[in-house]
Amino acid sequence: MSTIAVIGLGIMGGPMAANLLEAGHDVIGCNRSPHKVQALISRGGRGAETVAEAVAQADVVLTVLPDSPDVEAVVLGAAGVLASARPGTLLIDSSTIRPDVSVRVAGAARAAGVRAVDAPVSGGEAGAIEGTLSIMVGGEVADVAAARPVLEAVGSTIVHVGPAGSGQIVKAANQLIVAGTIQLVAEALVFLEAHGVDTDAAVEVLAGGLAGSRVLDRKSGGMLARQFAPGFRVDLHHKDLGIVTSAAREVGVAIPVGALVAQLMGALRADGHGELDHSALLLLVEQLSGRRRD
Amino acid sequence: MSTIAVIGLGIMGGPMAANLLEAGHDVIGCNRSPHKVQALISRGGRGAETVAEAVAQADVVLTVLPDSPDVEAVVLGAAGVLASARPGTLLIDSSTIRPDVSVRVAGAARAAGVRAVDAPVSGGEAGAIEGTLSIMVGGEVADVAAARPVLEAVGSTIVHVGPAGSGQIVKAANQLIVAGTIQLVAEALVFLEAHGVDTDAAVEVLAGGLAGSRVLDRKSGGMLARQFAPGFRVDLHHKDLGIVTSAAREVGVAIPVGALVAQLMGALRADGHGELDHSALLLLVEQLSGRRRD
Repeated sequence: MSTIAVIGLGIMGGPMAANLLEAGHDVIGCNRSPHKVQALISRGGRGAETVAEAVAQADVVLTVLPDSPDVEAVVLGAAGVLASARPGTLLIDSSTIRPDVSVRVAGAARAAGVRAVDAPVSGGEAGAIEGTLSIMVGGEVADVAAARPVLEAVGSTIVHVGPAGSGQIVKAANQLIVAGTIQLVAEALVFLEAHGVDTDAAVEVLAGGLAGSRVLDRKSGGMLARQFAPGFRVDLHHKDLGIVTSAAREVGVAIPVGALVAQLMGALRADGHGELDHSALLLLVEQLSGRRRD
Repeated sequence: MSTIAVIGLGIMGGPMAANLLEAGHDVIGCNRSPHKVQALISRGGRGAETVAEAVAQADVVLTVLPDSPDVEAVVLGAAGVLASARPGTLLIDSSTIRPDVSVRVAGAARAAGVRAVDAPVSGGEAGAIEGTLSIMVGGEVADVAAARPVLEAVGSTIVHVGPAGSGQIVKAANQLIVAGTIQLVAEALVFLEAHGVDTDAAVEVLAGGLAGSRVLDRKSGGMLARQFAPGFRVDLHHKDLGIVTSAAREVGVAIPVGALVAQLMGALRADGHGELDHSALLLLVEQLSGRRRD
């Protein structure tokens, strides 16, 4: 068992830390809002007031942060992970960030004697709580092998996809597919409603054929009921679609549907819905169709 | 057990007729190319040279035809189904056609004393062979109940979704989601290849998370191997995307991603690939990205 500093105890990091505790690890939590740290302590974990304090005691550092600048600040900053870690510490970054930042962080870590893997996750809050996340890992073979026992406490599908940054590339592809599938389901549901079809029956039969998807299974009920409590926020998916759009441009790959979905997610956010679940793309389809129920 | 005339023994109708035989029905096949009828006879079925001859002996008529004009000709034509059917015959149309045509066919059937349901199917050639099709049924409750024992021989998910034409509405939504999901997977795979990621590992981890779908499970292997033997042809999916685009316009529903995917499928067809499997959308993404391997 390891001593693991978990930096970032939000919607994903909180339940991941709880599952690490559950698996028997010694977990030290660190978070901007201290009540999340208290929640971890009440489950048997430990707390630290600063990143430096948490990291100095740890064999493994797990960062679960919102965006690239957060990871840069927390890992590379003056009192950050690399400045405080003992030599040989393993840094696992489960944030979803720009692949080029991930590569840079891995390089800086190596220079500081810290081993680093990028290990973004998919599966949402439910997957984090259940410990069934799908985890796409980039890094050197030995470092990924060292991370695996830790990741097995939080995920059920853990796959090494390539060198540093590769996890972020696959996560970008994941976010492209997820946003696009939500938009397709939204278009289909509004279309079915407008035609007066029994939508529950329609979803059942769609789920049984080639149109079946985890998005349809997990999201269509909330979409039909217009319940958009997150889950995964529009703000964050908007950020992720910026990442995939840039990363596609960098290698000259055209993603026409991905780019359109990025525009639609941006429009939904601009319309004031950044705090809703990403399945709220349905509201945009309704608005474009003159069917908003407000 | 019923005497069932099956009109149209193509990629879908052929295996569906075989499964009806297997279930113990008396099956009379009729097809433009007679060798398909011979194949049915060799499995224990019967053949008819004309629609009228097949229908005159049947309790149930199952039509599995490519497009709306084919159904209109075969059902409404001078020597067609309605002109030849005995009163009370049950017409099951498993073709994918325009919902308005389906409504018109059902009305004409009723006027001729024939009960009619629209019962388009999803699941592809594999689903037709295995008898595991997903079937979306539109029509009156009693007629759908009468059709169910027949449909159970060819499908595993059979759902009554509403009145006549509703099955076609749901099938249109199905085709929107399927084409869009293929395009998303195509964009993701070309993106991953361009970044040099291990695509087999990436597909495994994508399939385990919220990006998972039946399209990813069934189509990504062929797409990565550039094997595009149909399956379901681009020509037919192009036809179906015309149906969903029209049916969305009729009720004023905006389907921005569906409309874009319809354009992309049309472009793939215009580029001479109408005979390939619809998963060949990957070729278009490669072409748009300057990565076509030709």
